[in-house]
Amino acid sequence: MDNSKSFSIGLVGLGTVGSATLKLLENQLININQKSGKKIIIKAISAKDKNKNRNIDINKYDWEESPLALAEREDIDAIVELVGGSDGLAKKLAYTAIENNKYFITANKALIAKYGYDLHDKASNKDLAIYYEAAVAGAIPVINSINDGLVSNNIISIHAILNGTCNYILSDMTNNSNSFEDALIKAKELGFAEADPTFDVEGIDSAHKLVILGLLAYGAKPDLKKVYVEGITSIEAEDIKYANRLGYKIKLICIASLEKNKLDFRVHPALCLSGSICSGIGGALNAVFLEGDYSKKLTFIGEGAGAEPTASSVVSDIIHAAKSNKFLNSFRSIKNVREYKKITSRVGKYYIRLLVNDKPGVLASITSVLNENGISLDSVIQEGNESEENKYIIILTHDCNELNINNAINKIDSLNSLIGKSYLIRVENI
Amino acid sequence: MDNSKSFSIGLVGLGTVGSATLKLLENQLININQKSGKKIIIKAISAKDKNKNRNIDINKYDWEESPLALAEREDIDAIVELVGGSDGLAKKLAYTAIENNKYFITANKALIAKYGYDLHDKASNKDLAIYYEAAVAGAIPVINSINDGLVSNNIISIHAILNGTCNYILSDMTNNSNSFEDALIKAKELGFAEADPTFDVEGIDSAHKLVILGLLAYGAKPDLKKVYVEGITSIEAEDIKYANRLGYKIKLICIASLEKNKLDFRVHPALCLSGSICSGIGGALNAVFLEGDYSKKLTFIGEGAGAEPTASSVVSDIIHAAKSNKFLNSFRSIKNVREYKKITSRVGKYYIRLLVNDKPGVLASITSVLNENGISLDSVIQEGNESEENKYIIILTHDCNELNINNAINKIDSLNSLIGKSYLIRVENI
Repeated sequence: MDNSKSFSIGLVGLGTVGSATLKLLENQLININQKSGKKIIIKAISAKDKNKNRNIDINKYDWEESPLALAEREDIDAIVELVGGSDGLAKKLAYTAIENNKYFITANKALIAKYGYDLHDKASNKDLAIYYEAAVAGAIPVINSINDGLVSNNIISIHAILNGTCNYILSDMTNNSNSFEDALIKAKELGFAEADPTFDVEGIDSAHKLVILGLLAYGAKPDLKKVYVEGITSIEAEDIKYANRLGYKIKLICIASLEKNKLDFRVHPALCLSGSICSGIGGALNAVFLEGDYSKKLTFIGEGAGAEPTASSVVSDIIHAAKSNKFLNSFRSIKNVREYKKITSRVGKYYIRLLVNDKPGVLASITSVLNENGISLDSVIQEGNESEENKYIIILTHDCNELNINNAINKIDSLNSLIGKSYLIRVENI
Repeated sequence: MDNSKSFSIGLVGLGTVGSATLKLLENQLININQKSGKKIIIKAISAKDKNKNRNIDINKYDWEESPLALAEREDIDAIVELVGGSDGLAKKLAYTAIENNKYFITANKALIAKYGYDLHDKASNKDLAIYYEAAVAGAIPVINSINDGLVSNNIISIHAILNGTCNYILSDMTNNSNSFEDALIKAKELGFAEADPTFDVEGIDSAHKLVILGLLAYGAKPDLKKVYVEGITSIEAEDIKYANRLGYKIKLICIASLEKNKLDFRVHPALCLSGSICSGIGGALNAVFLEGDYSKKLTFIGEGAGAEPTASSVVSDIIHAAKSNKFLNSFRSIKNVREYKKITSRVGKYYIRLLVNDKPGVLASITSVLNENGISLDSVIQEGNESEENKYIIILTHDCNELNINNAINKIDSLNSLIGKSYLIRVENI
């Protein structure tokens, strides 16, 4: 190591991730210095409340009351932002850091999903770079793998489970036959869900991460409007039960793929074959299934959140920044690919849940609508006690077009015997 | 990209991996140049037979009859060795390349397992580096993950399935109730096993890869003598059957871990709980289960061999070399850890298969020996027709010490009623 070279960082945000990052930097400083070939110096830190009890001694570091002032300091080479939120302070910090010729390191997926493309641009114009391995899938080195290990591959597809909250809820519904509502309460109690879980359960957090991977794999400028997003709030305990009986588990899946020059980006619940690796991803774990044209299929599984796994990736990025490792951070630009596939053009199997008022001929009228729309059936389950008026009908189709399914469902939903609306889940081969 | 900068490689070996590497370099040259920031030039190639039909046009490249002459050429920056074998040409090429101030890139696990430490040393003395991502687990970026993504982690343990041939054979025995011999014949027919499969089925290839990971994770100088190695040739169809009945699958597992300042390196068959991710790794796939102190558990699954997955990693390494990315290539040096744990000090569960001449009291005499040695039992299966003289007794123990098991087994094997020797398989929680 050249001791004359140093690399000074300013750390903003000392919540659980910020504190874990500081601790890891302190624990591993010799190793980190050796790996980066520079002396890493934690020059100054900034957070909301200096006096909060953090189980870590921050008095040895320069304290900066204003995070933005930190980003303007001349004696700092990189800003590590662990504040969160797509706008507000995080955004200001990112732009201020780059304007002031600093590398920018973050775990903030909302920020990168919204401004990542522009920040890349601004940074590379200044011969700088931004780093955000921790923003997607925690400690799983997925960004590094796309940009480095698979650097020479055309990425055929990415399938992923990227939201630990949803995976925890779906796993709990599967293992303990809980309703969505009960599983959500449990997830909140155990710290797997936030007080307001909307971002997670509606699939938005997953979509943020998906567009980041889409940027790296396909050079697709992040745009949430291009992503079909459907959360898990409509999944009922019955869906888990019937899916299981049909040989499937339900997961919230992110998909990014390039097919016939069209990008296909979507987040939605999906039935995955029981016994597949995907179906076995339990609890709050994350998983990424990457297919490259040379690498073939690769699977990565690990903790997608949590202070220590996130800190692990942040510190790896600090070393990248210290080494000015810019190629890790660039994305594939696939020319002539501007078009996105519409969800209605999807072809695949579908699971349909219907609640009907059980009169003679109900099933016949439903299957005849499906038949008229060219949809053939793999399995049908009709259940309920003789005495019950309302019964579930569960249908698993063969491959068909989503447009046809939608047409059929519109007709079926208008049948007199139908109670409420039918509910569709796509079946994916992962 | 700075067009004035170029990086010239000499490629030695044009078998399936060499040809795939050349093809991938040609296909992705623009992308590779952009990522490496240099113009990558395939300056010259060398292989056994120039005129072999390769489905690839090699006439546009300089042909060098002598591979060693290639390694001495002044106009070459890196040698890519895809020849194989721990000694002979591969070894000469490696040392010649470094002596002549060239980076050295290889997919050769036997070479790196034997000379990797010394080659690292020689290379770093010249401010060069050696690269071998392709030597372990094909396209899975496991070396990159240990050295980069998990750079700031203390590696707690590595568990891995690193030999596709063995995993194919064990999967076939499991799925089709084949004997080891029949599964091996099938594996040879399908190209999953070589004509002489000794290296694979005896666990030696796995041990090579294990010591490479051990070098990177713990700075442990590769030494096959320090590794307990046991292959899969003694596994019978009955073991698969009974393991399955007890709720387990059998896999050939590589383990490297640091426990109380002692290194534990071993390769042996193991019972893994059915339903675990490990037990579900089918066919010729590889899997690596890494646990870091901050990252927590990470799992990587992919194709461990094959021309294209291997080429994917080789080309990624060519870019690392072009960028002189040396930190990716260094290993953790854990001071004061020189001691290795002996296999006899292992504590865990054991599966024991015994074939006995069924006389009254046989089981009683066996269990009494186990009891005398402090070994308590989880399950016992005794099977065979009334009419059969010889019956299998299958025992699953609770946690116990391997020394005690060995003592017990020695006594049991000397019992009159025992036919042949008993066979042990360790149970691992992966």
